[in-house]
Amino acid sequence: MKFSLVNKDSKSKARAGVLHTSRGLVETPIFMPVGTQGTVKAVPQRILSDEIEAQIILGNTYHLYLRPGTKILEKAGGLHKFMNWEKPVLTDSGGFQVYSLSALRKMKKDGVEFRSHLDGSKHFFSPEKVIEIQRSIGSDIMMVLDECTPYPCEYEYAKKSQILTSEWAWLNKKAFENSTPLYGNEQYLFGIVQGSIYKDLREKSAADLTSIGFDGYAIGGLAVGEPAETMYDIVNFTSDFLPENQPRYLMGVGRPENILECIERGIDMFDCVMPTRNARNAYLFTSEGIVSIRNNSYKDDFTPLDNNCNCYTCRNFSKAYLRHLFTAKEILAYELASIHNLTFYLNLVKQARKAILENNYTDWKNSIINKISQKENELKEE
Amino acid sequence: MKFSLVNKDSKSKARAGVLHTSRGLVETPIFMPVGTQGTVKAVPQRILSDEIEAQIILGNTYHLYLRPGTKILEKAGGLHKFMNWEKPVLTDSGGFQVYSLSALRKMKKDGVEFRSHLDGSKHFFSPEKVIEIQRSIGSDIMMVLDECTPYPCEYEYAKKSQILTSEWAWLNKKAFENSTPLYGNEQYLFGIVQGSIYKDLREKSAADLTSIGFDGYAIGGLAVGEPAETMYDIVNFTSDFLPENQPRYLMGVGRPENILECIERGIDMFDCVMPTRNARNAYLFTSEGIVSIRNNSYKDDFTPLDNNCNCYTCRNFSKAYLRHLFTAKEILAYELASIHNLTFYLNLVKQARKAILENNYTDWKNSIINKISQKENELKEE
Repeated sequence: MKFSLVNKDSKSKARAGVLHTSRGLVETPIFMPVGTQGTVKAVPQRILSDEIEAQIILGNTYHLYLRPGTKILEKAGGLHKFMNWEKPVLTDSGGFQVYSLSALRKMKKDGVEFRSHLDGSKHFFSPEKVIEIQRSIGSDIMMVLDECTPYPCEYEYAKKSQILTSEWAWLNKKAFENSTPLYGNEQYLFGIVQGSIYKDLREKSAADLTSIGFDGYAIGGLAVGEPAETMYDIVNFTSDFLPENQPRYLMGVGRPENILECIERGIDMFDCVMPTRNARNAYLFTSEGIVSIRNNSYKDDFTPLDNNCNCYTCRNFSKAYLRHLFTAKEILAYELASIHNLTFYLNLVKQARKAILENNYTDWKNSIINKISQKENELKEE
Repeated sequence: MKFSLVNKDSKSKARAGVLHTSRGLVETPIFMPVGTQGTVKAVPQRILSDEIEAQIILGNTYHLYLRPGTKILEKAGGLHKFMNWEKPVLTDSGGFQVYSLSALRKMKKDGVEFRSHLDGSKHFFSPEKVIEIQRSIGSDIMMVLDECTPYPCEYEYAKKSQILTSEWAWLNKKAFENSTPLYGNEQYLFGIVQGSIYKDLREKSAADLTSIGFDGYAIGGLAVGEPAETMYDIVNFTSDFLPENQPRYLMGVGRPENILECIERGIDMFDCVMPTRNARNAYLFTSEGIVSIRNNSYKDDFTPLDNNCNCYTCRNFSKAYLRHLFTAKEILAYELASIHNLTFYLNLVKQARKAILENNYTDWKNSIINKISQKENELKEE
């Protein structure tokens, strides 16, 4: 995969780059909205591309495999055609959902057995199987099957797991090389560095994976309950062992401040359900901090949610109207809130990129984070 | 209210006209999507106006009065500003919801006492009160408070109720004349003809209301469980007693074939929750009859829902994708289905208007209805 580094910030590890895929370019650092089941929840595809300006979205292999299933996806000509989305898609390997959603999972040497959370049916994911599924999906970036360790995690378990993940990584790579895309577009494969919070394991994992060789490298097993400072420390440590000229992806992260801190530590790609899930729960990200829009104080506040936001929601509707829609449980509430939160995230990484291009990343980042925390402190004092 | 009759079909009572409001023109016959609580469920305003080409929508006074309430609507500058909808709005009087939704309602000589279905709080709607509320809402067309009789309904009760409705109509008119719009736009007032299925009562009601004088006339108390043929007969009978140069509105109707039959009998305006409610229940109207999109047979049907439809949903997505979204309970399902069903209804009245302008209404109507019933018979035989 071609990844062009456009600029490295002179005072931090932050990078601005461009991912080249056969479905177009992706400017990094980038946030990828999560489209679990072939839709970014509550947001029509046209708004996702034209209004929110999402450049790449994430699909969940576990969910897509169970429903609609690979047979239907193949008949449709892949996920892109099925959901009518022309820009790039990255799919996870399904491993994380197997660990977090499915019942009765059994780790085995050659894969993981699990029961569907939908109907209890039995399934088996191996490195070979998840490559095959992602070929059926036709995602532009595929991920290897790994084991995501929980937090806290004993050193011995983390070590055993890291070794297994490296073995699987090699099997994933072999399956990748022995198969071809079904729909004409190029598909790339990213490895996933594991090792919990143990630096020696992270270093070993990074060494194993880079010696196998992937198109990009993810850092997995973080944002699973550890303190933010620990996450930042592990990210900072690990990114030094990843090739500079390839993309780095921190899986499942996170809050706006987490993303900004990890860009500073050398990460290029992020995904998280937070903007869409929080939106559906009426928690809205703004340039002045979180707004809990159900709050009674907004009932006659006819100003936009965020004066610094130009999204469809902020251009057209007031806080009072949004509060009314949430109070009345109207479906439109979820769409308008999701549009806003995703726009906020996409704007954030766009501004981050600009600051990197201006060699001013850390100052910019500090000003944003200070503003958010100052406003949140003011709100707490009120 | 200015209502221009553009053409009367030469072989039926169907009419093509134009309603003039201070928020723009409405070409009749017209279907009004129902926006109960300040939103047409699951459809963003921009899509409603630009894609579906809704020319006027309906708001429910009962719901808007309870939530967000008139105080907030007034502070917002009226419903239009609150929900950011620039085209005309018609509001009902709230009476129908009082009868159908609220607990412990008590009919009194001067109005109706009821408890909110939301919190049990006690309220009172009188002819004066519903005019006051609709002034706060700022709707372009307001409706009088009436009593909507159930079906079946004893003659004596229907007669008593018709007399009450006429008395209230007069009080509504007086309250209307003694008040003014709050936001600068013109507001008009429609009367409602009642009388259940009794022709003498319908004739009397029409005579009472036209002698009071309104900007337009609705036929209420139909589509409440009576056979379709009875409804058609009462509509046909009643419309002869309504002024030709004023708009006629059949409340709460209905299925596509009901609308077409009643256009033929001289009706200009319709509203119904059916297109949006059916959409959320996965029942989709097409030029080839109803499609129940959850049906297993659509799981690998990658054709559009309706080849004769040019809506956002049909232009971009397949039956298989829609079925997947409904199966996975994704919010996008409700939006895409609602967009399609509303487009179907708006196209239907647009085509009806064209047929009237071509003096070919009945032939056109018969061809549409025959096609729908033929396809539905074929499906039943399969």
